Amino acid sequence: MKIQKWMDEHEQKLIDQLQEMVREPSVQLNEWGIQQKIAEWLEDLDFSVDMWEPSGTELFSHKAFMSKRENFKGSPNVVGVKKGAGRGKSIVLNGHVDVVPEGDLTDWREDPYAGMIKEGKLYGRGSTDMKGGNAAMLFALQAIDALDIQLKGDVIFHSVIEEESGGAGTLAAILKGYTADAALIPEPSNMKIFPKQQGSMWFRLNVKGKSAHGGTSYEGVNAITKTKQVLEVLEELENTRNARVTDPLFAQAPIPLPINVGVIEGGSWPSSVPDLVKIEGRVGISPEETVEEVQAEFHEAIHSLEETDPWFKSHPVEVEWFGARWLPGAINVDHPFMKILTKQYERVMGEQPPVEAAPWGTDGGILTAVGKTPSVVFGPGVTKMAHQANEYIKLVDVRRCAEVIAATLVNWCNEEENG
Amino acid sequence: MKIQKWMDEHEQKLIDQLQEMVREPSVQLNEWGIQQKIAEWLEDLDFSVDMWEPSGTELFSHKAFMSKRENFKGSPNVVGVKKGAGRGKSIVLNGHVDVVPEGDLTDWREDPYAGMIKEGKLYGRGSTDMKGGNAAMLFALQAIDALDIQLKGDVIFHSVIEEESGGAGTLAAILKGYTADAALIPEPSNMKIFPKQQGSMWFRLNVKGKSAHGGTSYEGVNAITKTKQVLEVLEELENTRNARVTDPLFAQAPIPLPINVGVIEGGSWPSSVPDLVKIEGRVGISPEETVEEVQAEFHEAIHSLEETDPWFKSHPVEVEWFGARWLPGAINVDHPFMKILTKQYERVMGEQPPVEAAPWGTDGGILTAVGKTPSVVFGPGVTKMAHQANEYIKLVDVRRCAEVIAATLVNWCNEEENG
Repeated sequence: MKIQKWMDEHEQKLIDQLQEMVREPSVQLNEWGIQQKIAEWLEDLDFSVDMWEPSGTELFSHKAFMSKRENFKGSPNVVGVKKGAGRGKSIVLNGHVDVVPEGDLTDWREDPYAGMIKEGKLYGRGSTDMKGGNAAMLFALQAIDALDIQLKGDVIFHSVIEEESGGAGTLAAILKGYTADAALIPEPSNMKIFPKQQGSMWFRLNVKGKSAHGGTSYEGVNAITKTKQVLEVLEELENTRNARVTDPLFAQAPIPLPINVGVIEGGSWPSSVPDLVKIEGRVGISPEETVEEVQAEFHEAIHSLEETDPWFKSHPVEVEWFGARWLPGAINVDHPFMKILTKQYERVMGEQPPVEAAPWGTDGGILTAVGKTPSVVFGPGVTKMAHQANEYIKLVDVRRCAEVIAATLVNWCNEEENG
Repeated sequence: MKIQKWMDEHEQKLIDQLQEMVREPSVQLNEWGIQQKIAEWLEDLDFSVDMWEPSGTELFSHKAFMSKRENFKGSPNVVGVKKGAGRGKSIVLNGHVDVVPEGDLTDWREDPYAGMIKEGKLYGRGSTDMKGGNAAMLFALQAIDALDIQLKGDVIFHSVIEEESGGAGTLAAILKGYTADAALIPEPSNMKIFPKQQGSMWFRLNVKGKSAHGGTSYEGVNAITKTKQVLEVLEELENTRNARVTDPLFAQAPIPLPINVGVIEGGSWPSSVPDLVKIEGRVGISPEETVEEVQAEFHEAIHSLEETDPWFKSHPVEVEWFGARWLPGAINVDHPFMKILTKQYERVMGEQPPVEAAPWGTDGGILTAVGKTPSVVFGPGVTKMAHQANEYIKLVDVRRCAEVIAATLVNWCNEEENG
């Protein structure tokens, strides 16, 4: 109750800090400004702050490493650690500061980095994904500090880069030993609790044809026409894979593990038969399967075309895994951290939380797989706002999320170890 | 026989001139050099030469005008006229000097403009399309001149720009009055006689979807998936249109009037559901139908999607006609010019000529429709060499074609008018 009271009295501080965060245009390569601010805020709370540009062979050669960058100069990670009094459970609070590019500016009604507030919503690139969540975590820690609440367990605050490009920031933090008994990641779950996170990875398919003049199209093989068959195989594969999903956490999703074709490109002249079409997409990975298993099943589906179609037999579709990958993650729904989070949610929100599987991957996948830190996603904001023009977040959700996080920290970090 | 003898004795001149033509990299905007050469060669034959940069409202506002250019500065047309002795049939010899860009240079084994000769083939951009034909026409005129053969009818030599982009050069020549009783166009027909030329025009279709995150793909509508339906409608339309073609001139073509989808492009992020796919292609036009009729049938097919699919009903596919258009053309197979050309072919080649419909459009469409000049395509080189890397032409075909053209000129231009 005193947390609620303090938060009510200091709500403007939360809003101001979120606005400051959004006003930092922290697209890739431009994260320094916001990281400096977060480092200062954490220092104000007596956190021991580590700010560094990730580097080194261990990171770059790690099997979970995924980034197109050759170094992270100018893009520091920040981790703040506040040691507990002892014998309590530790927690990682993980949020990324990188935002996706603002896209076509003419689609925005306001400057994407103005942080305009209107009718209870704060607008701007990154407001939902995921500065709203970051502001909620910070505000929770500020309330605990202001109210002089002592925690037994350590609090480790990850303010990371590169989530949008494969999680190299969180991986770098893990490799420095910044792990804990559990992790909370306030990505935009629309205040749902996601104990399970779907992973995903990107594929590229090169579908071949044979060029010819369009007036004698029958002398060629149209790669666009052949791509239709490839799309059908991907649809069948999506059906097969999803028919196997029985976990009730996925019950809300019509397609729990989508295969999405996001990009298509082929040909250069309307009057020519195109000899190559490139398609790119993402395939969802369930926490019950490995990256390798998904890839093997995917390859098998694509290569099945070669059994029935002589063209594909002599011109197999090329499969490439490229760009980004987010590992899946899961925490047992009966895990003590889930119980505490759920209970505190009920107390603050006055209702039972929706508990579902996340339709997308987060750095929780790497935290689970590499950092051995069971991770839960719970945050303000809705998925469909992320990456859109005129992105916004409802301030009331940020405020409520902060209160749930503060209450969860107090209860979790004061759980006795081995008790 | 004396033409054959003279050509045998002067064959090196033909080769040298073709090589000179290929060494002029006459891509769009770079036609000045070759046109200057052709003007000089025609002047050497006592042609009255008109070299001008096409311009003016009549041209630019003509309904058959098709070009992306706003002016033709630096890109002159050349027309040479040699008046006959009188009362003979006149002829247009039409060839374009523009070549398509050389494309990826790494695909070429030699400099595309070197004009290398190897094993009876001359290599280079434009060798087949259509400098081989142009060289054959010029050589035919040189033989007639050298042998002091008098023609009764006028010979009008069109050396035009812009054939590859819609025929504005030939249109400009027609508007200046350079028309005749018949026209010969030595585009690469592989020495077949094409009394009928398929026209074609370019379409662009915008297929709409609804964007969403790929992890919740079911919240969106994938424009790539919707495009599959559009491609199927185009296939059906192609079947319907071709089932109507009964002209035996098209008997050699498995698909007389192809609809070719040449370009596809959509989406920008593998993890997003794409909301727009653009496809571009060409649709063949038979000489028996008008541009407007083909467009109407095409629109009807695309809009039929709206009757069965609610998505298309609320988000109709946008149809655009853009870029290039080649009008169809035809000359009656019993036309006196056809009879003479066929007979001279038989005499020179010792066999009956294949007579077919052209699978592509040429400037013969504009010559027929606007210039009221019945046009025949007959030239050396094969379609599949055109627009390719390592384009080449067989010199023996250029030489034979020149002889057929010379013999045809002698016989056609000495036919009495009205007789």
